[in-house]
Amino acid sequence: MLIEIDFQSDEALYMQLRNQIILGIATSAIREGDPLPSVRQLAGDIGINMHTVNKAYSVLRQEGFVTIDRRKGAIIAVDVNKLQAIEEMKEQLRVLLAKGICKNVTRQEVCGMVNEIYDEYGRQEDA
Amino acid sequence: MLIEIDFQSDEALYMQLRNQIILGIATSAIREGDPLPSVRQLAGDIGINMHTVNKAYSVLRQEGFVTIDRRKGAIIAVDVNKLQAIEEMKEQLRVLLAKGICKNVTRQEVCGMVNEIYDEYGRQEDA
Repeated sequence: MLIEIDFQSDEALYMQLRNQIILGIATSAIREGDPLPSVRQLAGDIGINMHTVNKAYSVLRQEGFVTIDRRKGAIIAVDVNKLQAIEEMKEQLRVLLAKGICKNVTRQEVCGMVNEIYDEYGRQEDA
Repeated sequence: MLIEIDFQSDEALYMQLRNQIILGIATSAIREGDPLPSVRQLAGDIGINMHTVNKAYSVLRQEGFVTIDRRKGAIIAVDVNKLQAIEEMKEQLRVLLAKGICKNVTRQEVCGMVNEIYDEYGRQEDA
């Protein structure tokens, strides 16, 4: 999996790293049971602080995307609590859609984008 | 407009404030041309630092939701750059949907939530 970090971005580095790993899981670039690189290795490869990688892994653990094994390190293990996932998504959509509504984006346009992104991620099974 | 801040939340106070004001515009609780309270007043009312209110207003200005007048203060003025709004929304949806996909949320479920939220905000015109 290729990790791309934008050092010019306003977004915190650990959040960029967390997002890239979630994108990797969504697109099946990394799968259940796959180990993530060690904190030291990833920090060295990307050229960021080990603390930043640690923080990203720790957020991923809290959010139910990885487990952290004392010997094996971080391993992809998605905790599919769908009800919780839906609640969290709805909370984030509320702000995102409010922003869009102010700018006259219609619900049809939003659903169009949702379909487009699901297609991009290659999720045809529920099309 | 009622502003609710959750001091227990992980989300930065200025982002909560920014989100509440965007929600206010989306639900027409505040409208184009309405003045926002002065920085001093809002900081006092909520019990937060003036710097935090300033930061929220400044983000809202950057995002095209308010203009800041030297004498009148912050005024709701939505800069409807729809193309840009759609690009920004798509960027944010990419991460949000990736997270949902990992947790088996389907595109139908997402569009269901989108419709539900548009209904909540009372946007029937494009239903």
